[in-house]
Amino acid sequence: MGIVVQKYGGSSVADAESIKRVARRIVETKKAGNQVVVVVSAMGDTTDELIDLANEVSPLPAARELDMLLTAGERISMAVLAMAINDLGHEARSFTGSQAGVITDAEHGRAKIIDVTPGRIEAALADGAIAIVAGFQGVSQTTKDITTLGRGGSDTTAVALAVALRADVCEIYSDVDGIFSADPRIEPRARKVDRISYEETLEMAAQGAKILHLRCVEYARRYDMPIHVRSSFSEKEGTWVVKAEDVTKDGTMEAAIITGVAHDRSQAKITVVGVPDKPGEAAAIFRAVADAAINIDMIVQNVSAAATSLTDVSFTLPRGEGQTAMSALDKLKATVGYESLQYDDSVGKVSIVGAGMSSSPGISARFFEALSDAGVNIEMISTSEIRVSVVVAESQVEDAVRAAHAAFDLGSDEVEAVVYGGTGR
Amino acid sequence: MGIVVQKYGGSSVADAESIKRVARRIVETKKAGNQVVVVVSAMGDTTDELIDLANEVSPLPAARELDMLLTAGERISMAVLAMAINDLGHEARSFTGSQAGVITDAEHGRAKIIDVTPGRIEAALADGAIAIVAGFQGVSQTTKDITTLGRGGSDTTAVALAVALRADVCEIYSDVDGIFSADPRIEPRARKVDRISYEETLEMAAQGAKILHLRCVEYARRYDMPIHVRSSFSEKEGTWVVKAEDVTKDGTMEAAIITGVAHDRSQAKITVVGVPDKPGEAAAIFRAVADAAINIDMIVQNVSAAATSLTDVSFTLPRGEGQTAMSALDKLKATVGYESLQYDDSVGKVSIVGAGMSSSPGISARFFEALSDAGVNIEMISTSEIRVSVVVAESQVEDAVRAAHAAFDLGSDEVEAVVYGGTGR
Repeated sequence: MGIVVQKYGGSSVADAESIKRVARRIVETKKAGNQVVVVVSAMGDTTDELIDLANEVSPLPAARELDMLLTAGERISMAVLAMAINDLGHEARSFTGSQAGVITDAEHGRAKIIDVTPGRIEAALADGAIAIVAGFQGVSQTTKDITTLGRGGSDTTAVALAVALRADVCEIYSDVDGIFSADPRIEPRARKVDRISYEETLEMAAQGAKILHLRCVEYARRYDMPIHVRSSFSEKEGTWVVKAEDVTKDGTMEAAIITGVAHDRSQAKITVVGVPDKPGEAAAIFRAVADAAINIDMIVQNVSAAATSLTDVSFTLPRGEGQTAMSALDKLKATVGYESLQYDDSVGKVSIVGAGMSSSPGISARFFEALSDAGVNIEMISTSEIRVSVVVAESQVEDAVRAAHAAFDLGSDEVEAVVYGGTGR
Repeated sequence: MGIVVQKYGGSSVADAESIKRVARRIVETKKAGNQVVVVVSAMGDTTDELIDLANEVSPLPAARELDMLLTAGERISMAVLAMAINDLGHEARSFTGSQAGVITDAEHGRAKIIDVTPGRIEAALADGAIAIVAGFQGVSQTTKDITTLGRGGSDTTAVALAVALRADVCEIYSDVDGIFSADPRIEPRARKVDRISYEETLEMAAQGAKILHLRCVEYARRYDMPIHVRSSFSEKEGTWVVKAEDVTKDGTMEAAIITGVAHDRSQAKITVVGVPDKPGEAAAIFRAVADAAINIDMIVQNVSAAATSLTDVSFTLPRGEGQTAMSALDKLKATVGYESLQYDDSVGKVSIVGAGMSSSPGISARFFEALSDAGVNIEMISTSEIRVSVVVAESQVEDAVRAAHAAFDLGSDEVEAVVYGGTGR
């Protein structure tokens, strides 16, 4: 008898009817002979409503108290889900993150999991019960205070519990059938990927595909825990995220060269114009940005014009951090002595990801040619072993996705009738 | 520097504005030089909404899970209250019942407090912080599961914490100015009582006055913890509930003969007509009712009519348990051999309570004469050392309250402009 960990997001438990549907699904998994542990997010918009309430009493709520408040969301969904399962004649017991042994550091709002000691979960399973665990939360090892894990926290809770319990699989449910070769809202011929490596999934997630959070994939990769990404609205197999050597196990002789196309419209580009081309100038710029806790993504430094010895430095960053970065750079103007700053939030990033890329030369060229044929202008380029990303005008993101998808022959003949959504927390 | 424990009910923290108002009040208490511990109920109708949600997925929600669900209510109110206090520039830390060391038995929905180990509260106070504690909840000593204390649970949490922390006083806030000599909605001249003994308060509560729950008064009495019942909407002194010998400390030479008039419209009366007047028959009747877990209150057995050797047995009980009791008695008809059952839910109970009663003869007579003069017919009578109660027709309850209030000269000259409300959980 194997252990299956299932994670249901907020949209899967948005109301009483959805909760009953999920309860039936969980009971079916149990009846199929598995020991079942379920990680659940807060119902629908509960988290947003709690944040609104907090903001009504304080413009900047204390982080410790905000965590205490938000964890009420999962407490509600997990208890109600357990009741719904009990009502189907199967024993279910709900556990908070703390009760489930999710031990974290003390960084409220973005705590990291330090250890998982799931003694009470194991006891529940040994008693034949289904264990329901609150996602997104834990308890600080040092302060004993309740913490939340931040974005992707529920997925990470599920993977961490699966690892600690030595589960066979961690199933992540959402309203999407799996990971697609591109966003089906942009490319209707996008194909559901059957198997994908941790590394490719990390690149897809980092490059804007919203199906799984980086953190949870990193955790799964570190401990080699297979993730099955699937829809709570269908019985179909979804996408298996596994280690690279297992991707091709099922008959295929070689990994696909390109697995998918990801895109991201959440970024902005800042260009520092006319930076003196001498040692330490670029460092000063990025030190200032880093000190402001800005996460920069791609960086391009132009070759300096010989006549002036001035160069331009461009980088991309999340749009929400744009103004903070501009202010930080503004303060540097006197010391670094650049000419001006340009801010552009009408950019998008399109990436091709594939483990086969490293052994297939000419991939970048084929990608760039396809973009050129589609009339898409490339503003910046960055690459990794298994990814090529370009920054383009936001208005050209969709053309670029379709051009890349076609160039690498990723499409299926059927058009998938799915909504490509994001996971919550 | 003394420790003050304050308890705010759901109506005092119904929305963000109320919470901010309560936060200011708490900060004032702190600024006055006290260490402050606050026990808080769930906001407004939160508990009812959570119960509705539970009933949407299960007609009979599992008790363990219902407790898990309901405790989300205080989690929300306590965290938001702590944020509001932090926003006023004072440190506040919220604690669940479990974190506050409220250890209970494992009876979900009506757990009893076994022990209070408030180490984390003491640490917070030592750090100069205000501690906010979830009322109504604890953690089971044996199962480590989250429990709720049932009705009156938040008041009891406050008193139990006050005792464990050796606080100077436990202040119970509601929307009422204190304990009144009668319900001001019935008797506009009802007077706020300045001091009242634990014993009188117990009798008042048991006889239907809704200001404090029996449980919390019993706890306070056992450990001699003074309770100050007051309104969160005014700065006025409320009613002090203290030990009998402290009631008269402030100048008054003797305890008032009668402290107040309580009434209760929640009861029904069952009469078993024509019971054979021989040993064991009444016992069989009350055994049947007790086995059905019915709480009976007053009992009257008529003198049997000599001609028939049959007697009538009447008792009162909560209306909600009426049908269960009637069914239990119906099954006895063959064995006990009574003639018929009568059920009357149009009754009410009116009681006079006063510690001075035991040393003042003629109190009952004065009470009964006043009722008679007001045209009120007495159906049943019961008495204790410090109380006389009568059952009357429900339509005559208000007349009876006013007649008793006037007979013992309880009124003030001013008419109090208050709403006489009940406490929540």
